[in-house]
Amino acid sequence: MADQGDLSQRARWAGGETLVSLLMARALGNPELVSLAVGFTDQQTLPVGPARAAFEAIWSDPARARAALQYGTTAGYLPLRKILLERMRAADGLTVKQMRATPEQIVVTAGSNELLFLVSDTILDPDDIILCAAPSYYVYLGTLANLGVRAVGVDADEHGMVPEAVEQELIRLRDDEQLHRLKAIYVVSYYDNPCSVTMPAERRAALVDLARRYSDGNRIRIIEDAAYRDLRYWGEDVPSMRSFDPDGTTVITAGSFSKSFSPGVRVGWGLLPPDLVGPVLSLKGNIDFGSPNFNQYLMWSVLEQSLFDEHIEAIQAGYRVKVAAMLDAADELLGPIEGVEWIRPTGGLYVWMRLPEHVDTGLAGALFERSVAEGVLYVPGEYCYPSESRRIPKNMIRLSFGVPSCEDIRRGMEALARAIRHVLD
Amino acid sequence: MADQGDLSQRARWAGGETLVSLLMARALGNPELVSLAVGFTDQQTLPVGPARAAFEAIWSDPARARAALQYGTTAGYLPLRKILLERMRAADGLTVKQMRATPEQIVVTAGSNELLFLVSDTILDPDDIILCAAPSYYVYLGTLANLGVRAVGVDADEHGMVPEAVEQELIRLRDDEQLHRLKAIYVVSYYDNPCSVTMPAERRAALVDLARRYSDGNRIRIIEDAAYRDLRYWGEDVPSMRSFDPDGTTVITAGSFSKSFSPGVRVGWGLLPPDLVGPVLSLKGNIDFGSPNFNQYLMWSVLEQSLFDEHIEAIQAGYRVKVAAMLDAADELLGPIEGVEWIRPTGGLYVWMRLPEHVDTGLAGALFERSVAEGVLYVPGEYCYPSESRRIPKNMIRLSFGVPSCEDIRRGMEALARAIRHVLD
Repeated sequence: MADQGDLSQRARWAGGETLVSLLMARALGNPELVSLAVGFTDQQTLPVGPARAAFEAIWSDPARARAALQYGTTAGYLPLRKILLERMRAADGLTVKQMRATPEQIVVTAGSNELLFLVSDTILDPDDIILCAAPSYYVYLGTLANLGVRAVGVDADEHGMVPEAVEQELIRLRDDEQLHRLKAIYVVSYYDNPCSVTMPAERRAALVDLARRYSDGNRIRIIEDAAYRDLRYWGEDVPSMRSFDPDGTTVITAGSFSKSFSPGVRVGWGLLPPDLVGPVLSLKGNIDFGSPNFNQYLMWSVLEQSLFDEHIEAIQAGYRVKVAAMLDAADELLGPIEGVEWIRPTGGLYVWMRLPEHVDTGLAGALFERSVAEGVLYVPGEYCYPSESRRIPKNMIRLSFGVPSCEDIRRGMEALARAIRHVLD
Repeated sequence: MADQGDLSQRARWAGGETLVSLLMARALGNPELVSLAVGFTDQQTLPVGPARAAFEAIWSDPARARAALQYGTTAGYLPLRKILLERMRAADGLTVKQMRATPEQIVVTAGSNELLFLVSDTILDPDDIILCAAPSYYVYLGTLANLGVRAVGVDADEHGMVPEAVEQELIRLRDDEQLHRLKAIYVVSYYDNPCSVTMPAERRAALVDLARRYSDGNRIRIIEDAAYRDLRYWGEDVPSMRSFDPDGTTVITAGSFSKSFSPGVRVGWGLLPPDLVGPVLSLKGNIDFGSPNFNQYLMWSVLEQSLFDEHIEAIQAGYRVKVAAMLDAADELLGPIEGVEWIRPTGGLYVWMRLPEHVDTGLAGALFERSVAEGVLYVPGEYCYPSESRRIPKNMIRLSFGVPSCEDIRRGMEALARAIRHVLD
C-alpha cells in the first residue's frame, strides 16, 4: 500500500480492503466452499439469448450499429431514458401528468451504484450526515465512508426503516443544532439489502413527509435505491417513494438492470429532481463522460423488443425456487435451534438471520472459522450497520441464494447448521 | 440549477455548463454548421464488422457468454489485463523483465477519463497542485477544478512540455515552500489534445528524472495520458514515459480504445505503480464496482482475434487523408493571411492554430460569432489553459478533423477563412 502521506484525504477515508476481498481471501483455501455470501445473480439465468437478439437487432442496421459504437451524451441515450421513465410511470400506476417528470431527469449510469455515488458526492460534504437503516447496504456504507460522510443508523424492522425512529433522530439533530448537516435519508425501498424487506406505502409517505417538513435550513433528500424492485416472487408491488413526492424535488430514485437482467451489461439509472440534473451531469462528465453507449443501445433494444418482461418472469421463477430451498432448509435445520430466527423474504436475494445473542458472527469469531471449515461462507451482519448506530449487534448474518444452485443452498445450509450447533455446544 | 447551498463543495467547484454544451447551444440555430470542434471519432470508421466478429466469438460458447454477462472484478477481466500489459511492453520494445509490472497493476476503466479521475482523486487533495502543459486537455482541467485542485500551467512548445520550464516551476514552488502541495505532473505524451504534439524521448526522460529528484517531501507522480498513441499517421513511435521510470513507481500511464476502436464500447485502462493499485480500486469499487464485464470480454475478443491491428491500420489511413485535407485547406486558405500559423500534426485528431494577436477567439468574441454565421464551429483556445497559467492567449483555436468528411473539412475551413478575413478587415 501507498505511504498514507502520498494519498488524498478521500483515499485515506476509503480505507483498505473491501469485505468482498476479505471474504475471498478466506475462501481461497477451500474450493468446495458454498458461498452464501456474495449477492451476485444466478449464472444460469443470465440472458444469453435475449442479449444476442438485442445485439442482432441493432447490428441489422449498420448505421445504428455505428451509432452504438460512437460517443453518446453524458446523460445517456434518450430513447432508453424515455422507456425508463415510461416504465417507472407504469409501474407506479401514474398518469403522465401525475408523474411530473421528463426524460431529461433520467441519467443513465454504470449500475445504480454509480448513481448513488454521483448523487452522494453532489449533495454531501465531509462531516455531513445521512440517515440509513440499521442494517443497510454495506457497499453504500463504504461509499459514504469514502466521502467522509457520517452515516447515522436508524432502527428498522420487518417493514424497513421506522418513521418514528427517523423523526426522533431528526428532533435530536435539531436539538443538537446539527440538522443543517443532514442532507439525505437513504432507503432501499424494495427487498432491501441485507433484510429483503419492502417498505409499505404508509411508511413511504411518512418518510417523504418527514424529509419535507424538516427541510427548513437546507433540503433533506430521500435517496431511494430501488435496485431490487423487479425481484418480486410473491405479493403485490408497492408504488415507489418517488410517487409520494408531491413535486418531485425530494426523492431521487435509483434503478438498475444489474440484478434483473445482467450485471455484466451494467446499466443503471436515476430519476433526479430537476435541480440536481445539472450538477450530477457535471460530475459524471468528469468521471466517465457518459456510460457506454453500446450498453445503452443494447438495453434499449432489449426493452424495445419486449425481451425484458419475459426474462424477468424466468428470473423470478428461478429465484422463487431457490428462496424456497433456502427457507425449507432453514426451517428444517435451523428452526429447532433456539434463538435462531430469520425474516422470510418475498423478493430480493437475501435472508437476514439472527443467531443467539452470544454468538459472534464476525470474521475473527468462532462461527465464521467453523463455517469455513464446514464449507460455507456468509456475510457477518456487523458490516451492514452504519458506523454511528445506536447498537451494532454481533449475532446477525446475511445469506444470499443468488448464485448457488438449490443443491448447493442445501449443502451450505447443512454446513451452517453444523457450524452453529458446534459453536453453541 | 440547485440552490448552491444544497450542493456539496465539490459540486460547486464542478461549476455549471461544460464547454461542449455551450458549443452545442450555439450550434442549434444552424444545422448546416460544420463542427471542427468536437474530438469525436469518424463515424464511418467505427468497427461494425470487428465488433460483430468479437461478439460472435464470445457467444459461440454459452458459458463464456454467461461469464461476460455476470459481474467481473473491480480491477477488470484478467485475460484482458494480461493482453494490455503485453501490448504496452511490446510497443515499448521492452523485455518482460525490463517492463517491471504485473497484470495486477492494470486497472480497466470506463475510458482513460475514468482512470484520470480515479488517480487524481486518489492522490490530490483540494488546494494541491498539479503541473499541466499550457495548453492542456480541457476536460481534464474540468476534472481538476471539480476536485478543487490547482492546475498550474507550464510552457509547452511543438515538442510538448518544456523540462526547463517544469524545473523553474519546481524551484519556485520549493522557494515558496509549496513543493509539498505538488503531487503530480500531467502529460499527454502522444499527439496531445489540443496541439497534437508528441514529446520526444529525451524530454520524457528529463521529466521523469525531475519528478523523482524533487520528490523529497511527498512523491510527485507523472500522469501519462497515452490515449492517442495509436493514432499515428507518419513518423516513428516513441517509448512511453513509463519506460523511462526506473522502478515503475513514478509514472501512471492511462490508455484507451475509445479513439482507436470505439468510444461507445468505452474501455480504457491504467498501468499503476503497485502502491496505488489498492487505493484506486477502493475508490472504483465505490463508484462503479468495476467496469462492465461485457465490454471487457468484447475488447478481449477483439484483441485475441487480432481484429484490432487491422482496424487501427484502416483508422490511420482514414485520418491520414483527413488531416491532409485540413492542412491542404489551411495552406491554401489561411497561409496567405499574415499572423495565422499552426502546428502540422503527424497523429491525433487536432490542429492547433494561432491567429493574429488582437483576434479574440472566445465565445463572446467577434470571430466566434462570425464563424457560426459562416458555418463553422471551433474550440476557443482559452479553454485549454490551466487556470494558473502565466499567460492565457486569446488568439488560439483548436480544430478537429475527427468527425467531418474531407468535403466538410474543406467547407469548414473555407467558412473559417471567411470569418477570419472578416474580423481582420
